[in-house]
Amino acid sequence: MNNPPHIAIAGVTGAVGQEFLRLLEQRSFPFASMKMLASARSAGKTVDFKGTTYTIEELTADSFDGVDLALFSAGGSISKKFGPIAAEKGCVVVDNSSAFRMDPDTPLVVPEVNPQEIANHKGIIANPNCSTIIMNVPVWPLHQAFGVKRVVVSTYQAASGAGAQAMAELEQQAKDWVADDPITQDIFGRQYIWNLFSHNSDIDPDTGYNTEETKMIKETRKIFGIEDIQVSVTCIRVPVLRAHCESINLTFEKPATEQQVREILAAAPGVTVLDDRENNQHPEPLIASDEDDVYVGRIRTDAGQPEGYGIEMFIAGDQIRKGAALNAVQIAELLLT
Amino acid sequence: MNNPPHIAIAGVTGAVGQEFLRLLEQRSFPFASMKMLASARSAGKTVDFKGTTYTIEELTADSFDGVDLALFSAGGSISKKFGPIAAEKGCVVVDNSSAFRMDPDTPLVVPEVNPQEIANHKGIIANPNCSTIIMNVPVWPLHQAFGVKRVVVSTYQAASGAGAQAMAELEQQAKDWVADDPITQDIFGRQYIWNLFSHNSDIDPDTGYNTEETKMIKETRKIFGIEDIQVSVTCIRVPVLRAHCESINLTFEKPATEQQVREILAAAPGVTVLDDRENNQHPEPLIASDEDDVYVGRIRTDAGQPEGYGIEMFIAGDQIRKGAALNAVQIAELLLT
Repeated sequence: MNNPPHIAIAGVTGAVGQEFLRLLEQRSFPFASMKMLASARSAGKTVDFKGTTYTIEELTADSFDGVDLALFSAGGSISKKFGPIAAEKGCVVVDNSSAFRMDPDTPLVVPEVNPQEIANHKGIIANPNCSTIIMNVPVWPLHQAFGVKRVVVSTYQAASGAGAQAMAELEQQAKDWVADDPITQDIFGRQYIWNLFSHNSDIDPDTGYNTEETKMIKETRKIFGIEDIQVSVTCIRVPVLRAHCESINLTFEKPATEQQVREILAAAPGVTVLDDRENNQHPEPLIASDEDDVYVGRIRTDAGQPEGYGIEMFIAGDQIRKGAALNAVQIAELLLT
Repeated sequence: MNNPPHIAIAGVTGAVGQEFLRLLEQRSFPFASMKMLASARSAGKTVDFKGTTYTIEELTADSFDGVDLALFSAGGSISKKFGPIAAEKGCVVVDNSSAFRMDPDTPLVVPEVNPQEIANHKGIIANPNCSTIIMNVPVWPLHQAFGVKRVVVSTYQAASGAGAQAMAELEQQAKDWVADDPITQDIFGRQYIWNLFSHNSDIDPDTGYNTEETKMIKETRKIFGIEDIQVSVTCIRVPVLRAHCESINLTFEKPATEQQVREILAAAPGVTVLDDRENNQHPEPLIASDEDDVYVGRIRTDAGQPEGYGIEMFIAGDQIRKGAALNAVQIAELLLT
């Protein structure tokens, strides 16, 4: 790959696309040229990046001529159609959609967990699901130390995972509620403010698990490279804007003290431990928002398992940032090294 | 006890006190007379009940003369002080505070679980913690059928559990946010709207569990009458007004099919099964609000345990109603039978 590379952003108008730009600027990501791509609807509009105004182009099969690196976040069907076209032209695609995550030929990478997989790419590298990434960052170092046999996780997911329009609808609902107007419910078909609900992905009629939950199970196994890790998961949307939380209960193969767990997490890349029992300061969505790290707190020896073989903790991570854009940009940085 | 009884409501101005009145009216609870008690601050104010206006009296040691039945929801210290005084005067106290819950001489009752314990009272019967009640209603019939070895539960708790002022602050925060004013944070000391946080009860510096979590563990063991049921619990406050949700993962001693679990829950008293996979209709706080039953959905065989030995589900119950006032009124109804 040329370094600095010629870059394209596919889906630049979305919440994740906008975060790509913010991160590339903040991290001084090197580039020879930058192409802003979106649907025909957005073509002709402009975006500013590092003091330059770029005109958005319609994403087509020709968009990737001469492009070395493409960051995709334009939905699964766009990735499925244009990812392979870009890869065939010699462009390396870092894809934020679910299109290629479980493809055996596509590495699925959390840089803090399995960066070595990047070298095996055949043109496309997949970015995992946001809840999966946020869970994997603190669970992986504990797995390395003690062997994680089982994870029981319940999520508290933000509107941002459903896109910028979902965030806007949640904000609009607050305005509607204060004004005593009918509550706008175009996106989720229900009142979201003062409410929460089972994740809005399809539920498998046989297993009863929704797609988000199945992603967390299957992707974690692929990223960890372990087929038999047991994941029990419930995904819930809460009225929060852009950071996800997760209540995580772990069962270890080897005994662990709470102190050992704390020390490992404090030293783990991408993790900030926030665990102040006296002042009840623990991870919250507003604390994790716009931050790179996954926050981990409420760390304690599980009262419901044989002493030392279980840990409970509560985590928060920015869904748009580490859950999507940052993870992809970290992969791109590793591609350049 | 006289039937109809002479009744006193201690803490009538609170959210639970107000719900006591609504329930006594709705359920045509028989009474010979009604006394409305609160702190000196509220004495002299009035409340309406069944078309009659009552003047609130200050709660004192003399308040319970000639009273047969008292419903207490005025905080633990009031219960501790006045509960035994009332009991000594022959009044039966149904106490919503935590003051006597773990006292070996005080029955701790969820009417759907252990109504037989009511007969053992010595003047005081304790109403369990709200999250405990809501969890116990659907878990108990499954325990009877399959033996519950372990519960892993994460809560999504409403503002109402912290009282009427907490609910008002959350609503005020919506107004502040829409008006772009500084966010009022007198009660919880943090922004609550668009946020969530670890439950605001004290955290044990040694175990790391907060008081709410410890209640769910210890009270469940006492109500079920089983010392060795394992409960792993994380309690979280979400920006919701008056119904709690819980994500519950169960481990059984005997294998259970999903169909068996559904049938047992559908027939269980106090439970409404709401589990529509196709339309993603499952328990939500707004669905459970102002309802008597605990709603149960997302019922599925746990993918993370040996087939048949685990079930996952998601539940919602009105914290003020079944989590507090209704449970107490049900106990009072059983006292009259």
